[in-house]
Amino acid sequence: MENKTMKDSESINSNRRGNSSQKRERGLQIEGYSIEGLSIAGHETCIIVPSLNLAFDIGKCPQRAISQQFLFISHGHMDHIGGLPMYVATRSLYRMQPPTIIVPKVIKESVEKLFEAHRSMDHSELNHTLIGLDVGEEFYLRKDLKVRAFKTYHVIPSQGYIVYSVKQKLKQEYVGLLGDEIKKLKLSGVESTYVEDKTTADNAREYGHTHLSEIIDLADRFQNKAILLIHFSARYQLDVIQEAISAIPPPLAGRVFALTEGF
Amino acid sequence: MENKTMKDSESINSNRRGNSSQKRERGLQIEGYSIEGLSIAGHETCIIVPSLNLAFDIGKCPQRAISQQFLFISHGHMDHIGGLPMYVATRSLYRMQPPTIIVPKVIKESVEKLFEAHRSMDHSELNHTLIGLDVGEEFYLRKDLKVRAFKTYHVIPSQGYIVYSVKQKLKQEYVGLLGDEIKKLKLSGVESTYVEDKTTADNAREYGHTHLSEIIDLADRFQNKAILLIHFSARYQLDVIQEAISAIPPPLAGRVFALTEGF
Repeated sequence: MENKTMKDSESINSNRRGNSSQKRERGLQIEGYSIEGLSIAGHETCIIVPSLNLAFDIGKCPQRAISQQFLFISHGHMDHIGGLPMYVATRSLYRMQPPTIIVPKVIKESVEKLFEAHRSMDHSELNHTLIGLDVGEEFYLRKDLKVRAFKTYHVIPSQGYIVYSVKQKLKQEYVGLLGDEIKKLKLSGVESTYVEDKTTADNAREYGHTHLSEIIDLADRFQNKAILLIHFSARYQLDVIQEAISAIPPPLAGRVFALTEGF
Repeated sequence: MENKTMKDSESINSNRRGNSSQKRERGLQIEGYSIEGLSIAGHETCIIVPSLNLAFDIGKCPQRAISQQFLFISHGHMDHIGGLPMYVATRSLYRMQPPTIIVPKVIKESVEKLFEAHRSMDHSELNHTLIGLDVGEEFYLRKDLKVRAFKTYHVIPSQGYIVYSVKQKLKQEYVGLLGDEIKKLKLSGVESTYVEDKTTADNAREYGHTHLSEIIDLADRFQNKAILLIHFSARYQLDVIQEAISAIPPPLAGRVFALTEGF
């Protein structure tokens, strides 16, 4: 059994420069990007893209997130932001550079209060750079990489982030001041809390969540090369999620991946 | 291999009313108490005693801590208190009774601010009962069980907790108003961050921590039937800790246990 798993995993790895494919053991390989982390609705969501040195949401601050320099927070629900002070404290413990944390502008003040409360308790500095980003605003991670916040729909204010690769056409002295967008990175993340028929799309919407059926219904609107589903309900066993993904019809078939670490 | 492990564990379990002994798989059995949780200095400390329905410190809020109704916080360092909001939120998610949280009185106001910051972000209630307990003060978990805070020494204000079994000699109508202490529960927890010679006891003290050699030097002062060592430095491999414990001379030999989950 173990051998079989390893063999599967190796053959998948050797395929990682070919078509998008799923790595079994740790994280996923999608369109050339390694994706790690975990996402279980209500419990913990943290999506890590090591090659971009960033994480989306921090969950309970899983070990692998700590080494990421940039953190983008989607909204203030505990399972997405609860580990934020721990993330900053642990980077300091390891004497790593203070991280840069991007949050929806509407929660920036609350996040500041969170850090103030911890500082008054533990007398530490909890050094970091906190940036409030509104929908439509952009943030440059690097000269050749920027992120734009876009509106998402949830029971509290929330946003997603699109990472853009920027080609510099200007002389070196102008670099960082202007940039032409040339390539939208080909990956989008979609929360799909529900995947089967017992919970209807209407039920899901009440909680500000998405049902897989809604994604399938809107299949022809997705221009992404790959879609990563996260934030599945804890009620699901792994096989239920995998079966639902396998059953996705064209034109989405083969383009949809699931982050199922922990299921 | 699996069978052997199970057999070892069963024989240990069957022995749990006899002499203190160590369970291999999950947690420890010490003097009739099952102890779970994990404690790695700087990373996460959460000690769980399921039979008393309580945890000492919350770490990053490990899954097993969530079902404990009472939480006692020793001090405000992130690795001890970071998971506190997550603990309250997750009990609410599971529709469990709001927990009772006991903290050093000196940090109570900061803890309140922490919860306020989260409430303003996620619009949740985060219901719980928060009690500030000063050194020397007592709190009744149950009619027959009370906890007294005692002073400990660290770089920021900190305290430990002793759990007492209380025998009721009074008529039922007076129960809970008065109680005679009859039995100090036989277990004490001691932080022993350092166990070997590379870090001296003086080094350890600078950080407000304890070196195993200090415990051994003061061996004749310990009247406890058992001593649980926690909070080891992340620098240690499991075998270094185990060797140090095995080498403890009388009168402590056989009475000292180590919580080594995660090493």
